[in-house]
Amino acid sequence: MFEQHLFPAISQPVSGSIIYEHIRILFPILRSITGKGIRQTLEYVANQIQDFSIVSIPSGTPLFDWMVPDEWNVNSAKIIDTSGKIVLDLNWSTLHILQYSQPFHGTLSRKDLEEHLFTLPDYPDFIPYKTSYYTENWGFCLSENQKKKLTDLHYTVEIDATLSSGSLTYGEVLIPGISQEEFVFSIHCCHPSLANDNLSSLAIAIELIRKLQSLPQRRLSYRFLFVPGTIGSIAWLAQNTEKTKNIKNGLVLSCLGDKGSFTYKKAREDSANINTIMAKIFSDHPKARIWEFEPYGYDERQYCSPGFNLPVGCLMRSPNGTFPEYHTSADNLDFVTPCALEESLCVLLDLITITENALYPVSTSPYGEPQLGKRGLYPLSPNISKADHTKNDMPDQLCLLWVLNLADGKNSILDIAVRSKKSFRAILSAIELLQEADLLKLYSDKQQNAFSP
Amino acid sequence: MFEQHLFPAISQPVSGSIIYEHIRILFPILRSITGKGIRQTLEYVANQIQDFSIVSIPSGTPLFDWMVPDEWNVNSAKIIDTSGKIVLDLNWSTLHILQYSQPFHGTLSRKDLEEHLFTLPDYPDFIPYKTSYYTENWGFCLSENQKKKLTDLHYTVEIDATLSSGSLTYGEVLIPGISQEEFVFSIHCCHPSLANDNLSSLAIAIELIRKLQSLPQRRLSYRFLFVPGTIGSIAWLAQNTEKTKNIKNGLVLSCLGDKGSFTYKKAREDSANINTIMAKIFSDHPKARIWEFEPYGYDERQYCSPGFNLPVGCLMRSPNGTFPEYHTSADNLDFVTPCALEESLCVLLDLITITENALYPVSTSPYGEPQLGKRGLYPLSPNISKADHTKNDMPDQLCLLWVLNLADGKNSILDIAVRSKKSFRAILSAIELLQEADLLKLYSDKQQNAFSP
Amino acid sequence: MFEQHLFPAISQPVSGSIIYEHIRILFPILRSITGKGIRQTLEYVANQIQDFSIVSIPSGTPLFDWMVPDEWNVNSAKIIDTSGKIVLDLNWSTLHILQYSQPFHGTLSRKDLEEHLFTLPDYPDFIPYKTSYYTENWGFCLSENQKKKLTDLHYTVEIDATLSSGSLTYGEVLIPGISQEEFVFSIHCCHPSLANDNLSSLAIAIELIRKLQSLPQRRLSYRFLFVPGTIGSIAWLAQNTEKTKNIKNGLVLSCLGDKGSFTYKKAREDSANINTIMAKIFSDHPKARIWEFEPYGYDERQYCSPGFNLPVGCLMRSPNGTFPEYHTSADNLDFVTPCALEESLCVLLDLITITENALYPVSTSPYGEPQLGKRGLYPLSPNISKADHTKNDMPDQLCLLWVLNLADGKNSILDIAVRSKKSFRAILSAIELLQEADLLKLYSDKQQNAFSP
Repeated sequence: MFEQHLFPAISQPVSGSIIYEHIRILFPILRSITGKGIRQTLEYVANQIQDFSIVSIPSGTPLFDWMVPDEWNVNSAKIIDTSGKIVLDLNWSTLHILQYSQPFHGTLSRKDLEEHLFTLPDYPDFIPYKTSYYTENWGFCLSENQKKKLTDLHYTVEIDATLSSGSLTYGEVLIPGISQEEFVFSIHCCHPSLANDNLSSLAIAIELIRKLQSLPQRRLSYRFLFVPGTIGSIAWLAQNTEKTKNIKNGLVLSCLGDKGSFTYKKAREDSANINTIMAKIFSDHPKARIWEFEPYGYDERQYCSPGFNLPVGCLMRSPNGTFPEYHTSADNLDFVTPCALEESLCVLLDLITITENALYPVSTSPYGEPQLGKRGLYPLSPNISKADHTKNDMPDQLCLLWVLNLADGKNSILDIAVRSKKSFRAILSAIELLQEADLLKLYSDKQQNAFSP
Repeated sequence: MFEQHLFPAISQPVSGSIIYEHIRILFPILRSITGKGIRQTLEYVANQIQDFSIVSIPSGTPLFDWMVPDEWNVNSAKIIDTSGKIVLDLNWSTLHILQYSQPFHGTLSRKDLEEHLFTLPDYPDFIPYKTSYYTENWGFCLSENQKKKLTDLHYTVEIDATLSSGSLTYGEVLIPGISQEEFVFSIHCCHPSLANDNLSSLAIAIELIRKLQSLPQRRLSYRFLFVPGTIGSIAWLAQNTEKTKNIKNGLVLSCLGDKGSFTYKKAREDSANINTIMAKIFSDHPKARIWEFEPYGYDERQYCSPGFNLPVGCLMRSPNGTFPEYHTSADNLDFVTPCALEESLCVLLDLITITENALYPVSTSPYGEPQLGKRGLYPLSPNISKADHTKNDMPDQLCLLWVLNLADGKNSILDIAVRSKKSFRAILSAIELLQEADLLKLYSDKQQNAFSP
Repeated sequence: MFEQHLFPAISQPVSGSIIYEHIRILFPILRSITGKGIRQTLEYVANQIQDFSIVSIPSGTPLFDWMVPDEWNVNSAKIIDTSGKIVLDLNWSTLHILQYSQPFHGTLSRKDLEEHLFTLPDYPDFIPYKTSYYTENWGFCLSENQKKKLTDLHYTVEIDATLSSGSLTYGEVLIPGISQEEFVFSIHCCHPSLANDNLSSLAIAIELIRKLQSLPQRRLSYRFLFVPGTIGSIAWLAQNTEKTKNIKNGLVLSCLGDKGSFTYKKAREDSANINTIMAKIFSDHPKARIWEFEPYGYDERQYCSPGFNLPVGCLMRSPNGTFPEYHTSADNLDFVTPCALEESLCVLLDLITITENALYPVSTSPYGEPQLGKRGLYPLSPNISKADHTKNDMPDQLCLLWVLNLADGKNSILDIAVRSKKSFRAILSAIELLQEADLLKLYSDKQQNAFSP
């Protein structure tokens, strides 16, 4: 109810090359949903930002309908031909191992081996990324061209891996604001050397967190979760069920480094605030796609499960499964660009600008239009007639008029931007001018009877 | 509130040729809104199904703003030329008589006769079907080509008809279910030898009733009314006003045997459940038409009159008045096909499958997704990665995920099918699998707080 | 709640040439937001209609955030070249003076003079209309071709004007009805010799008022405001704030004499009744435009300001700023036509017909359709079968059926016209017939339970 101040639009000081550098450093690590790789990755994040906690949950811990699996680590994995020559080696690519392969040492016929080899015949140079988390198996992923060279009758396989009691690890940071209401960002970080999916989001999140932590005061609290896919978000939900009551908006971040257009997949409830915000942001991006919610994709599946039904959407550029590089060795350091990364961060800063300004303006002069001329807010000569509404400065004039007209306490700043079809930042500038002229007050709650006697 | 069982999707065992056979048998009868023809027709229906009642209401009985008219029967009707030769005879076609013609015997000039002759100049071979129920008149319907041959200066007319106190007759069967809530089907059966309009619906209804009566148990009660148009539905409404309170859905069936695409005309209230059901069924029929309600057409005019405002739509293939054969001798046994009749019955069986499964699923594992893999409900190797969502079995997988996601007690099975854009039968199969895995419960009522502590 | 009578559809007896004549007479006057010109114009209106009041408010009177400005009058204004020849004279066109020019006498270099000359280089023959109400200035408006001829090094300027304490003047007439609920029309009348903007609306309003005053009895009260733009509507609102509570509909009239298609700009609240009415009227005008509200344009800006938020839209033909003649000397007596003026008045008479018939029909025979035939309301022979629904008189038949079907006390006559897609006048004719047949009653309020026992 108290009068509020505007949160200034965030300018963008982080260059895409800084974001890209995080990806470059983390790319070589063999990550999975458990094990050393994801821990090493989370430790890197912990070194970049303040107040980052790394949480470990022991194998066997029940998590709703699930259970923390055994921890998987692999020291080496190779295929050796009959001449003793190594023909495939995990050292060549972190993708070469079927994730959660069990240890295996033995010699097999080529035919038996082939049941454990995974390729992409349509893209003969790409190594696929494959997993078998919850079904016992072992295997190798390789390119179709590599597989064609395996012509011996027998091969020896050496997989030096462990699948044993350990823990599941995820990272978390809460950036507290004046209100306990939370905006949650969720980033899956369980994939090995895949740059877009999802080191891109991890790197962008690091810079977004730094930015938020540098701001003097925030209205909202922001929580970032760096989790292994599916089991990680379920783990957080299971162990923090009470905290979910504070979540008023949320976004799963995924595949934010490629050159494709933006895609926003809606939260389950059509009326969720995050859906309105993203639709507004992308109304200025002609190629951006707004997709309906469906219970397939990333961790929004868990946040939007019916027991929680949290207002969490998913922000992507090219969506999962729609580009050939997806889940292959072609999702590499060349596939993501500093420019795309920077543009994605800009969208998130627009988003913060909007959520921090969830305010309701009330005009102090609501009966007729206030006289803008005497306050220097009306364009003067040579634009001396209302007829000249093609002048360059008229858009701003129209923003002023829209704000004054809708400043009845029932419309939020976002509502005004949506109805006027003006950009949120243009409306924010207009509000700043009008507030300076004492023509507006801002409230954090809707004012149903702002002008009643 | 008690937990419910699924009603299995109805398979279709009735071949179109069986439906067609009813039409073939009933086609020659001269039916009208009263009289021997409609009684004979209803007696045929009574012989085909169980529990069919034939109701008679005496002439002169008031029915709201109407009154049961005199009963009309005609023994013979002919036109004789000056040489004594019969040039038109009711024996040649039941359409030759203007319905409700009064008895007439006399000789007239050709000019005077022509005022009582009805033709279709645009379709010179077709005999029109015409009526004059509530205005005193007599006349003949004939083809334009027949009329052209009438060149004598005088003709003798012999109409041996009776218009006298008798009764109005309609047929009715109630197929009771667990609930007293009713689905009403209404079929007009007052037309003479017109195959599509409306022996097609009468024949389909016979087979639909047989099917429903053969099912072990139904949740809903189904009422079928075989009525003469307008006056028949008004008669039933007038004498059963209290029963209308139980009608939760309804459908007028008309012209269901021609080869045209399906047409569903909505019930008066846009939000009526039957409108949602038919829109869902026809979302899989690309050529099907959904028409807005209008107070012109068949007996939905009476069911949707403002004092009742019942949720009754109208199912047709080619709608009344839109095809040249409509209300002419060309609506004959060649105009309807076994294939179209069978397809129409299938739509009605889909409808029963949907109405019998008006249930609200509630997930037993609503916090995060349940782990489908450990229950054998997740596709395994070689589909070992979520990436492979182009696999053939993924649609079913997506059905499982949609059901689990929306199983919050607020969405009916129909709601889930509509939102997921999956077929109702595919969603039903998914629910069956999930119920077997103890992941779902089904309720007959909406559960507003299914997951509250 | 009492039963109501229909208000007969208004026929249109006023020819466009009568409307045009008002424009012709008033065109030469030099009007501004204050001064002799607007007073002379209002006195003309006062002579045309009954009960017209002219209100004066002294300079300096505060009006919400504004204040009545000094009154501006100009006796003469000219530019004289070095030879003593008059090269521009206010007598040649009322547009030659920059409105609210301060008095000025002096000789200037051509260069200094040019800072006070306003032209339209893109339309070299047009004299622009320019104002500087609230910023001190002086100047001349002229055509680009006139300006090109000014080649002397010096010119003498003589502006004999006064800007001094006086008053603001506006005109007002209230045409009282049975109800205190008001429909307000607002017409700006501050422009000098511009025919379309806005003598067209002023002239139409005179004839509309005459028409309304000639009607025996009206349900609604109608208020017409003839005001100088912006300051005039603010003045009325400031001095009549209590009366705004009775305003249930309103329309700003502007630019109604050109040949362009109609444009309706919606009132601020999308659900405003006036928006529904105008959308219905223009559903029969295929070229008419419906525009969303925006807080730029005419006095609807003031009526729709958030403290009032009155249901006031704006009716135009070609909208302000969209045609080259706008605010120039080309908006002259040739630019408006008797035909367009008459057509605009017709739209307003349609509007009155709709607002006067804001009634809720209730069927006296709501159970099934009433039998129209026995009341002579059903088409008889030769249209003896329902099949012939292509007959010319069937549209009326369908209007009867729509009215009877929707006459449940919840649908207004307008609702019925909208839903049936029939013209309001056709629905009105149907209601008249049904009321004569005692099949309908009309109420002024919605009847939620018209058929309850």
